[in-house]
Amino acid sequence: MARYLKIYSIPDSYQFHRGGQIDGGILAYETWGELNQDGSNALLILTGLSADSHAARHSESDTAGWWEYMVGSGKAIDTDQWYVICASSLGSCKGSTGPCSPNPKTGQAYRFDFPDLCLEDIANTAVLLCQSLGIKQLHGVIGPSMGGMTALALLLNHPDYARHLIHIASGMASPPFSTAIRSLQREAILKDENFNMGFYSHNSWPEEGMKFARKIGMLSYRSAIEWNERFPRSLKKVPEHPFGIEFPVEGYLEHHANQFVHQFDPISYLYLSRAMDWFDAHAYAKPRGTNPLKSVKLVSALVIGAETDLLFPVMLQRELHHHLLEIGAQSELVITDSIQGHDAFLVDQISFDVLVRTYLTQSAV
Amino acid sequence: MARYLKIYSIPDSYQFHRGGQIDGGILAYETWGELNQDGSNALLILTGLSADSHAARHSESDTAGWWEYMVGSGKAIDTDQWYVICASSLGSCKGSTGPCSPNPKTGQAYRFDFPDLCLEDIANTAVLLCQSLGIKQLHGVIGPSMGGMTALALLLNHPDYARHLIHIASGMASPPFSTAIRSLQREAILKDENFNMGFYSHNSWPEEGMKFARKIGMLSYRSAIEWNERFPRSLKKVPEHPFGIEFPVEGYLEHHANQFVHQFDPISYLYLSRAMDWFDAHAYAKPRGTNPLKSVKLVSALVIGAETDLLFPVMLQRELHHHLLEIGAQSELVITDSIQGHDAFLVDQISFDVLVRTYLTQSAV
Repeated sequence: MARYLKIYSIPDSYQFHRGGQIDGGILAYETWGELNQDGSNALLILTGLSADSHAARHSESDTAGWWEYMVGSGKAIDTDQWYVICASSLGSCKGSTGPCSPNPKTGQAYRFDFPDLCLEDIANTAVLLCQSLGIKQLHGVIGPSMGGMTALALLLNHPDYARHLIHIASGMASPPFSTAIRSLQREAILKDENFNMGFYSHNSWPEEGMKFARKIGMLSYRSAIEWNERFPRSLKKVPEHPFGIEFPVEGYLEHHANQFVHQFDPISYLYLSRAMDWFDAHAYAKPRGTNPLKSVKLVSALVIGAETDLLFPVMLQRELHHHLLEIGAQSELVITDSIQGHDAFLVDQISFDVLVRTYLTQSAV
Repeated sequence: MARYLKIYSIPDSYQFHRGGQIDGGILAYETWGELNQDGSNALLILTGLSADSHAARHSESDTAGWWEYMVGSGKAIDTDQWYVICASSLGSCKGSTGPCSPNPKTGQAYRFDFPDLCLEDIANTAVLLCQSLGIKQLHGVIGPSMGGMTALALLLNHPDYARHLIHIASGMASPPFSTAIRSLQREAILKDENFNMGFYSHNSWPEEGMKFARKIGMLSYRSAIEWNERFPRSLKKVPEHPFGIEFPVEGYLEHHANQFVHQFDPISYLYLSRAMDWFDAHAYAKPRGTNPLKSVKLVSALVIGAETDLLFPVMLQRELHHHLLEIGAQSELVITDSIQGHDAFLVDQISFDVLVRTYLTQSAV
């Protein structure tokens, strides 16, 4: 992946949506395919909270990406046809500038001196990147999970920068249940003594907090139905100590928590998590109560949800679909019966391949 | 309430379901109404994890109980007609013997020396209590939440001790999602430095662990729909420090966590929580795969679930209903559209009053 990673330099004095600025910021990004002559075939993928720019492999010897089945030659997001861009989010810890990057003024990591981060900042810097690549207008913007809200932030702040939208497992704002989950994740990290107001190091990593945060998150990524199939009651272990790991689901949570703990920077996690809870498309309504998407010039949209998604329940996709129709966009709403809950877009390849492939093909006509 | 609290002495050498025994154990219990001459009007209420014996007030000056709207003169569980018994669960910290009670052999609290507690133990000691009151057979056993599983434990171990069953917001076993929630609650308590392997005191209480456990639990008690109505996005606060309480749902979680922290004993919580995850009615099937309730002599049952219950989803009530019909019990399944999730039986008074009232009236014919 490393040799395909590209760097975009954000202009100095980049102003954040909620105030504050940074100098010398960068976005790490990757591209697939070629921009055509009139620059009309660009698709921007905006990612979920913990994903990076590596959506798919660039060559056979490359490592697989987080949306490998979706992006590539002949795949639903066909890189023979489309010029695909995916950046690591501003504020993340996957190559782009974030709270754990060095502040050029001090040489030390920003930590809590990093400006308050909003999804609008992730969207705005992604637009700057695309413009730097010569893209005057995106054919489409594609966002699963946090990326779906970031896509709306993009459209609300750049109403005619994309003609089409694929919005997956997301909504116009986080419902209180999702905010509660994320609030407890943040609390688990902040509580860890090793977090130390952001002054942790590799040797004093807030492991327990990160693990616990991941476990809480895991409650919301799949569904009760999928877990019923995955964890037979008969597989109980004899725990090593009283109240040690005994139930199959406990081993699963522990395994995923251990995998995650050093994969993401704790303070970046806090910033991105809060940005999700801050985002509220409804706040763009002027006057309050009118359709907040009023100014958005979108030709069409595909809005996908899964019946089993606890984090972004289908009522949110219905709400967005309704608002899109109201502004005259040709919106199509699909609620899948995927049992994988919020993660369905990563796992239920058969359903999502067809939906995205068909929609993109039609959008190109 | 105190002057209505009665004490039953469990016979010495009481043997626990998983092994181990205690001497000098007691159950704290309350009764309402009068047992009739042929002892045929007794109803036993088995409680949820954190409830006590005080289901309802005994006089106007008494404090309200946890199921006040349901139990009393002229109410759905009409104490003019029924002799109602409710005990604090064995292992709990509400008057009955549990891990925080003194071990008569040492004079010190049992802590982890308390035998492994199962719902079977709660059920078996409740039956001993009822027998001591002269009840040869219960008219009915009523169990919401954990109490619903305890009621099944009672029937499986005393197949003809109850003629009727009201089973609410529960199931034949905990689904993995519920076990995961409870596992994280236990982990939060065990992680708290003050927990100290059970050697905490009032002055060194594992407050943080208990608060966090309660917050995790709160995720599962209501529903996303109810929370959408309860927490308007516009009510955000300015937090006192970065990542402090800001979103309405965060204030709600904090408030309930603070209320709970000293209301329940941490080690009792661990024991009861694990007992819920251990319970598995399916394990009673002989041979494996047959109907585990085969031996149960139940005339009828009312099985109630709520569409929005995350902790005991409706598939569990459907499963139980199916098994009850198969053994020839007249089972009635009601799935309510209550938006209050798992807590519906405590909050949706109108739906639950009618259901329980109608069922009990018919059962008396």
